Formats: sequence, structure tokens, C-alpha cells
Amino acid sequence: MDSRWKDALYVTEARNDTGLEGYAYVAEGIVVKTSSPLNNQPGSNPEQLLGMSLATCLKSTLEAIESENKLSHSAQVHVEVAFIGERAHYEFLVNAKIRIPGVNMDAAKQMVAEAEGRCPVSQLLSGSENYTVTTVEKF
Amino acid sequence: MDSRWKDALYVTEARNDTGLEGYAYVAEGIVVKTSSPLNNQPGSNPEQLLGMSLATCLKSTLEAIESENKLSHSAQVHVEVAFIGERAHYEFLVNAKIRIPGVNMDAAKQMVAEAEGRCPVSQLLSGSENYTVTTVEKF
Repeated sequence: MDSRWKDALYVTEARNDTGLEGYAYVAEGIVVKTSSPLNNQPGSNPEQLLGMSLATCLKSTLEAIESENKLSHSAQVHVEVAFIGERAHYEFLVNAKIRIPGVNMDAAKQMVAEAEGRCPVSQLLSGSENYTVTTVEKF
Repeated sequence: MDSRWKDALYVTEARNDTGLEGYAYVAEGIVVKTSSPLNNQPGSNPEQLLGMSLATCLKSTLEAIESENKLSHSAQVHVEVAFIGERAHYEFLVNAKIRIPGVNMDAAKQMVAEAEGRCPVSQLLSGSENYTVTTVEKF
């Protein structure tokens, strides 16, 4: 076991005991009904949960970067997740679109690059060719 | 834009317009109250959302693999996520612990390796040294 676990600021554990048509939960947190994106049953899917995790992480990191640069917080984050492939060969594509209306495009791109490297969820995805981050002028 | 987006079976978009102390949501899906793991405010955090995404994905993939091998479904998935580091240098550690009580340890390890490569969320994390998958005899 990586010794860094011992110095963690926080550790949580998530489970799904029931399957894609079931429930994901955290012992000390919420229970989320889950369902495949390819049927009409109500429920969140792994794509949505991952997207919400990354959106929250990037938004929060951008807020910190704006604050460090004495800027008011204007960054907006939209995370798209696609489900592609076929049986036994599925993949996800993840694209984070970021708009920072309070600064010019060069400054926005610089802040986005910094957020991409600092947000822990973004770090975890950064080894994948299926993960992209795009700075946009408008959504 | 990667041309594979055009052939997607499903695309979703997640947002957080409010920050870590706020709400993450999916337009056609749920709204989740979010909060930092380091305070006492109620709310899910990016660690938990990522953990639930991976747990659901691995559980579902293992179920498919068991079915393909004409085995009844016994795989259990616990995903631990740790928040480590210090200001401006944070990271997450992710460890998926998998137990397959219905088969022996060698068979379990083989199925876990296959699930690790097939689950789309696992694929996205696989480039990170902070991501580990462990086959366990008991939790």
C-alpha cells in the first residue's frame, strides 16, 4: 500500500452492491439510484457521477486560482462525457469546457492549464487520450 | 474534436455553477449538494462522486464478465478515495478493492484484471500512478 494513504487529509469509501440497475452509496454520505444510460429507467449513471466529480473539482480549483490572482470568480465549467464503443469494448470520452468571462483568452488559457494540472480529478484523468480540456469563449 | 464523439451511444453534460460549497447537477438528471470534505457542512464531495462512478462501473463490468463465464454474480467492489497533499498541491489516491467469493483467488485475479481493462472509468484512471486495483479475499 502506497504510504501516502497514511497521511491523507480525508478518506472515503464508495460502494455499489447492486449493479448498474441499483444504488451507489457512501457509508457516511448519499445514496444514488443508478441505471444504464441506454434504457429509460430513472437513475444516475457512471458518466454523470464522473462528470459531476470533475466539474466540481475544476470549478473549485479555478476559484482558488482566480482568488490567488486577485480576480473575482467568473469561471464556468461544463463537463461532457460520452459513452462509445460496443459490447466488451466500451470507452468514455471526457471533455471539460471552461469559460472565464472575466479575463481575456490568453489569460483564460493560462488559468485553465493551471487548473488542469492542479485539480486532483483532472490529474487522475490526464494520462488518458480520452480526456480533453478546452478553453471556450462561449458555450 | 475527436471524431468518436459523433458515434457516441450516449452523451451527458455535468455542471457545477456554484463551487465546492454548492451543487453539481446534470441537466436531465440529479442535483447533488456538494461540500468540501474538510468541513462539517453536509454535501457530497468530488472524492465520493468519483468513487461512486468507479464502483458502479466496476461492479457492472464484473457482472458482465461473470455472466460471460457462466458464473453467478458474486463480485463485490469497495472503492477508497483519499485526499492528500497541501494547498495548491493536492492529489487523490484511488484504490478499488474487489472480492469475488464465488471463485478461487487465481480466477478472481484474472477476472479483476479483465474488469480493470474493460470498465471505462478504470480505463480513464489507468494512466495514473495514484490508481490501484486490489483483489482481496475479504474486506
